[in-house]
Amino acid sequence: MSDVKKVVLAYSGGLDTSVIVKWLQETYDCEVVTFTADIGQGEEVEPARAKAEALGVKEIYIEDLREEFARDYVYPMFRANTIYEGEYLLGTSIARPLIAKRLIEIANQTGADAISHGATGKGNDQVRFELGAYALKPGVKVIAPWREWDLNSREKLMAYCQQHDIPVDFTSQKKKSPYSMDANLLHISYEGGNLEDPWTEAEEDMWRWSVSPEAAPDTPTYVELTYENGDIVAIDGEPMRPHEVISKLNQMGGDNGIGRLDIVENRYVGMKSRGCYETPGGTIMLRAHRAIESLTLDREEAHLKDQLMPKYAEVIYNGYWWSPERRALQAAIDETQKNVSGVVRMKLYKGNATVAGRKSDASLFDESIATFEDDAGAYDQKDAEGFIKLNALRLRIAAGKGRQQD
Amino acid sequence: MSDVKKVVLAYSGGLDTSVIVKWLQETYDCEVVTFTADIGQGEEVEPARAKAEALGVKEIYIEDLREEFARDYVYPMFRANTIYEGEYLLGTSIARPLIAKRLIEIANQTGADAISHGATGKGNDQVRFELGAYALKPGVKVIAPWREWDLNSREKLMAYCQQHDIPVDFTSQKKKSPYSMDANLLHISYEGGNLEDPWTEAEEDMWRWSVSPEAAPDTPTYVELTYENGDIVAIDGEPMRPHEVISKLNQMGGDNGIGRLDIVENRYVGMKSRGCYETPGGTIMLRAHRAIESLTLDREEAHLKDQLMPKYAEVIYNGYWWSPERRALQAAIDETQKNVSGVVRMKLYKGNATVAGRKSDASLFDESIATFEDDAGAYDQKDAEGFIKLNALRLRIAAGKGRQQD
Amino acid sequence: MSDVKKVVLAYSGGLDTSVIVKWLQETYDCEVVTFTADIGQGEEVEPARAKAEALGVKEIYIEDLREEFARDYVYPMFRANTIYEGEYLLGTSIARPLIAKRLIEIANQTGADAISHGATGKGNDQVRFELGAYALKPGVKVIAPWREWDLNSREKLMAYCQQHDIPVDFTSQKKKSPYSMDANLLHISYEGGNLEDPWTEAEEDMWRWSVSPEAAPDTPTYVELTYENGDIVAIDGEPMRPHEVISKLNQMGGDNGIGRLDIVENRYVGMKSRGCYETPGGTIMLRAHRAIESLTLDREEAHLKDQLMPKYAEVIYNGYWWSPERRALQAAIDETQKNVSGVVRMKLYKGNATVAGRKSDASLFDESIATFEDDAGAYDQKDAEGFIKLNALRLRIAAGKGRQQD
Amino acid sequence: MSDVKKVVLAYSGGLDTSVIVKWLQETYDCEVVTFTADIGQGEEVEPARAKAEALGVKEIYIEDLREEFARDYVYPMFRANTIYEGEYLLGTSIARPLIAKRLIEIANQTGADAISHGATGKGNDQVRFELGAYALKPGVKVIAPWREWDLNSREKLMAYCQQHDIPVDFTSQKKKSPYSMDANLLHISYEGGNLEDPWTEAEEDMWRWSVSPEAAPDTPTYVELTYENGDIVAIDGEPMRPHEVISKLNQMGGDNGIGRLDIVENRYVGMKSRGCYETPGGTIMLRAHRAIESLTLDREEAHLKDQLMPKYAEVIYNGYWWSPERRALQAAIDETQKNVSGVVRMKLYKGNATVAGRKSDASLFDESIATFEDDAGAYDQKDAEGFIKLNALRLRIAAGKGRQQD
Repeated sequence: MSDVKKVVLAYSGGLDTSVIVKWLQETYDCEVVTFTADIGQGEEVEPARAKAEALGVKEIYIEDLREEFARDYVYPMFRANTIYEGEYLLGTSIARPLIAKRLIEIANQTGADAISHGATGKGNDQVRFELGAYALKPGVKVIAPWREWDLNSREKLMAYCQQHDIPVDFTSQKKKSPYSMDANLLHISYEGGNLEDPWTEAEEDMWRWSVSPEAAPDTPTYVELTYENGDIVAIDGEPMRPHEVISKLNQMGGDNGIGRLDIVENRYVGMKSRGCYETPGGTIMLRAHRAIESLTLDREEAHLKDQLMPKYAEVIYNGYWWSPERRALQAAIDETQKNVSGVVRMKLYKGNATVAGRKSDASLFDESIATFEDDAGAYDQKDAEGFIKLNALRLRIAAGKGRQQD
Repeated sequence: MSDVKKVVLAYSGGLDTSVIVKWLQETYDCEVVTFTADIGQGEEVEPARAKAEALGVKEIYIEDLREEFARDYVYPMFRANTIYEGEYLLGTSIARPLIAKRLIEIANQTGADAISHGATGKGNDQVRFELGAYALKPGVKVIAPWREWDLNSREKLMAYCQQHDIPVDFTSQKKKSPYSMDANLLHISYEGGNLEDPWTEAEEDMWRWSVSPEAAPDTPTYVELTYENGDIVAIDGEPMRPHEVISKLNQMGGDNGIGRLDIVENRYVGMKSRGCYETPGGTIMLRAHRAIESLTLDREEAHLKDQLMPKYAEVIYNGYWWSPERRALQAAIDETQKNVSGVVRMKLYKGNATVAGRKSDASLFDESIATFEDDAGAYDQKDAEGFIKLNALRLRIAAGKGRQQD
Repeated sequence: MSDVKKVVLAYSGGLDTSVIVKWLQETYDCEVVTFTADIGQGEEVEPARAKAEALGVKEIYIEDLREEFARDYVYPMFRANTIYEGEYLLGTSIARPLIAKRLIEIANQTGADAISHGATGKGNDQVRFELGAYALKPGVKVIAPWREWDLNSREKLMAYCQQHDIPVDFTSQKKKSPYSMDANLLHISYEGGNLEDPWTEAEEDMWRWSVSPEAAPDTPTYVELTYENGDIVAIDGEPMRPHEVISKLNQMGGDNGIGRLDIVENRYVGMKSRGCYETPGGTIMLRAHRAIESLTLDREEAHLKDQLMPKYAEVIYNGYWWSPERRALQAAIDETQKNVSGVVRMKLYKGNATVAGRKSDASLFDESIATFEDDAGAYDQKDAEGFIKLNALRLRIAAGKGRQQD
Repeated sequence: MSDVKKVVLAYSGGLDTSVIVKWLQETYDCEVVTFTADIGQGEEVEPARAKAEALGVKEIYIEDLREEFARDYVYPMFRANTIYEGEYLLGTSIARPLIAKRLIEIANQTGADAISHGATGKGNDQVRFELGAYALKPGVKVIAPWREWDLNSREKLMAYCQQHDIPVDFTSQKKKSPYSMDANLLHISYEGGNLEDPWTEAEEDMWRWSVSPEAAPDTPTYVELTYENGDIVAIDGEPMRPHEVISKLNQMGGDNGIGRLDIVENRYVGMKSRGCYETPGGTIMLRAHRAIESLTLDREEAHLKDQLMPKYAEVIYNGYWWSPERRALQAAIDETQKNVSGVVRMKLYKGNATVAGRKSDASLFDESIATFEDDAGAYDQKDAEGFIKLNALRLRIAAGKGRQQD
């Protein structure tokens, strides 16, 4: 194992990854570079510096990646109306390719030959980190401590801390929760604890980003989202950058009890797991994006997108962001967004994010054609007969030859 | 046109189809058979008898098709988690094949050579009625008065009534609404009126089946749905037939402000239209079905279903229920439902239908494997390394050969 | 009907479209502009000028579109390995969008308000011409004489010629055949005559572009095709433009009895029809393109392409080249072709076009990994265990819970 | 490793698996049960008995599985027109699930707790064997010697033989070839040797089942295949069982130089490999099945099948025969085959298997509708106008609003 010289670690500043710093130094006798990113998780990242220094780390990277995350990952994904298994907005999945990319870039900059992360051996995140890393630097060595060491219980971790003088206050607030949590600009997730019984409802005090629908205001909030080429560029007429949009919608959604989700999902590693998610802004964005598309997309491109979406969601969920199939799908999706511009008015009320109106200069909705009143000539009702007759022809021939009909 | 001897008309008892009775008798000099079905639209059907008699109709069919509709059409469709264009639960679409089937069966029974309906020449329903009719009786003559006559305004219709002594109280309550409406057990739809501007929010007094979320009770309602083979068979432990299930859930959903939808959709005939829908029970059913599947479906069959669903929805929306492609898709869907059994607990609250719990004897969720605690041996974390390495291999080879990586 | 002032006609110079010129002039009392294109059909187009002039046409367009056809239509289509219904290389379908586009462009140039074509009312070509025309100029008037007039037999057409002094030698050679034929650079098609019985084999003297496999040379011909970004740019090392490539391969394929096809296909208008096709060059190109992709495409992008292809083929077959869904699909397909470069060596022999070798600087084939000999280290066989174990996990869990296993 | 008591080995009687018998006995100190199946590989299986006995095996299973293989695996797969990556007929892939099933059944019968096979750690077959085994007996132990031992070269294997008195004539004829080969009723495959350079054409003397097209007879052979429900039930009018059909077509195809394939394919384990295949009968069957479907399948079910096929092929190639997704896909496929009955006439000539005719009592081809002559009334050409107009409507609206058109 002594062939690793320097390793870049995705370092949160919390207890687990602090233990990993020490364990890497000891086990591999190598230098550790820490990388801590603000991707909107809502915790200060700067304190990670002192902690890393205390652990003897010399190269410390601390970065604000919120805008890059929102612009280059979250936004492209929302253009596809992406949902995994009919429910999940992929909040965790979409953050991993960016982390993987930065780990590799820092490895290249610092001359490191390995990367490491704190994901466990049972989850999807190890897969996402590592597929990304291998795709971007095929010869990189990946160290996944949770798959290697024997510190796989809280007790053993604490004992290791004591032995190695790792201050216990490295334990982040988060870790005092009975749940395994992960947060970024798009969402916060909860697993474990009493969620492990899918029959049990999540406890109210688990949720951190949103009030309950019951506790939300008794009057609705309306908000107008301006789209350009499939992306939100302004809220209530005020231009905003992507990460500001998401932050703002998180706050508005959270205030109105929007975006809680409680599901059992199928992990790529083969098991089912139960997770709870809060995605206030994303929940609003999904609905609103569909609404602006409903005006501006052609029917067949819309249906094509709907048929491609489950595959696209699977690709991202499974960790293949940095893959040719994702790029090919993205090319098709982005091609459809050229006219997805306009304004959507959303009503937020006690858990509901509903569409209250949509308008667009690029609208394909034509009142004069759809109306039930007399024709302006654009549509001749008599054409419908031929349309139906020819569409029915294959069915009529089959029936005429005595085929099963019902 | 004199070659039509007898025509079976889908007769609602309302003004429009009453005019059609008269118009058919006059224009085609033929006998008219009326067919009026209770498919859960919430209006009495028996009064249609006297109206038809008053119009000189001799063969009058009035039938309660609620159970057949729920069991053979709505239930199979919900097994697929069917949604059209990401939003619409296909409430209107799914009722048409049953009406088409009964029209043809009655035509065969009464020796009629034609069928007729009151759908306009701009909508989807003409397509659905007629594709069904042609598929089931390829030589049938279809008469679509709205595409033939020149009575295409309310004024002309009223004038026709006066000329032909059709009592004005044939106008159903519904028709006094500014909206074009259609209802059945699964939903009620609204089009036209001031909905024609997609920027305008629907008025509160338009909605008929549900209270607004604002007006719904301040305390949630919990309900347990028991599934067998993908279908709900009991509510709160009480066994119910399919149409009773839907009725009950409509009432519970409507009471809690659940199931309102306001969308712009793409019609099969080529235009966009704006519609509002209330589907209280269906909205609960969709969420609950996904929840029971989340426990009981294998990942890959679940993903396959998700990839097939948009096509299946399109097939139904476009009116191809009676088609070989629908049967093939249904065969695949039904094959997956053998183990979709168990109980889902739903929380209904002010517009929200959320999953509060799910359990199943056929559950594939395994707490001992998914847990973050020590392994029981079923899952060896070290396997993840090989899993990732081989899944990454193609990406590594490509990167190693200098392919684009990001 | 007098509202048409000027119409652009797709004019072949043959009898049928000559009759159409006259019929349009008479029936619509309008000016006729003729458009005759060389798209590689193998007949002189220049003679159409004198014929048109003789019919009183003043604006005559005669163009060589072979290169545009090959480069902008055939080549993009072959990037997708496009086949309709498992067999048909879409030779007729792919020529129509170009004709439609030029018809509309000429209409715009000449101030014409209508276009016309000689396709019958039962075929796909009317749909392809007209969908293209409407997509490119939504207000255009389309005149389809075969759907309007009563000249629908050879006898009536001949009588019309006599009455209107249309010289009988306008009948092209082609029309003396018992088959309905259509040719362009990519293929020649045959329908009708004794092909109407699908049990009857086509007669040897029907085929025009290829010798029979029996009559082909007894020694194979080898040819090397050089690809860049998915397109053939050289044959046997000699750079060629797209239309030269196709011509050359047609000749080589035809000489070796390659490219005959005899199928029953499903028309978009709802019926089955039996057609025979000769596509010598295209048959070679399809095989060769798959071969160069087999070296240079990533597995998952290759599989994605295979899953999209039937839809893409359907879009083209049905006439939706000028549609947003075709553009979205094309964007995905083209995205995958960036590294599809290299050389394929084909063996042509008595009807067989087989791959004899393929090489590429962008090859992802790695002898050292695929070999059965000792490992160079890039691939650790032990990884396979973890790969299999985790891929099997969902199946094991299901089996462990007593699910159906076979 | 001593926890294995009895292991069932897929035993060919060749050198490699003979070594495995010994190695298992030694390494695991366990009893070995051998299972040798005739799946049409064209070598005697009975000699395996004496060899196994000589190795000290007490429980020896030798079975003729040809009919089961043909009927329950090959036939269902051909109903889908299955091809992997546009070329490969899955000859190896389709045999594995049956072997896996019998291994597990014999394990259950003999009380064995493990199974073993001779597939290497770089190929697909290990995956297919093991996924099958785990799906059918989730707790089974799988021993893959090639991934465990260090005998991974021919020299080491030979040395092991000498040390352990394994007679060298256990080396089958096959193994004397420079190629790695695998054969069953459906095909024979070749890998390795000088095939490892994809630019090199396979040598003529590699091929074993077919003559070259050059060496095939100078006159064509015609054969008539009778289908019932998608399966061939008779050849030239003579009823045959599935495995007889395949044998007979292998012989006829091989005699006529049909069924050779030379491809680079993407393995599930992540690398590309070059393989040559001979599938004489299967090549005929694929073409013929498409031909009988061309007459008897509805267009939309045919297109649905074409869209599902690549996924279905991938499922089989990757080893997921025993999976719920395969069963769901099969249900859809089988649903479409109810009317796929009739006769196809094939012409076999020097490498070409071409369709010379097809007929069916269930034919949906209707000469009177498809004909170019005057209408019998079933099809009104004027309907085409409405059909086109409504299909064009969405394109016209978009163009009318200034959308990109080309």
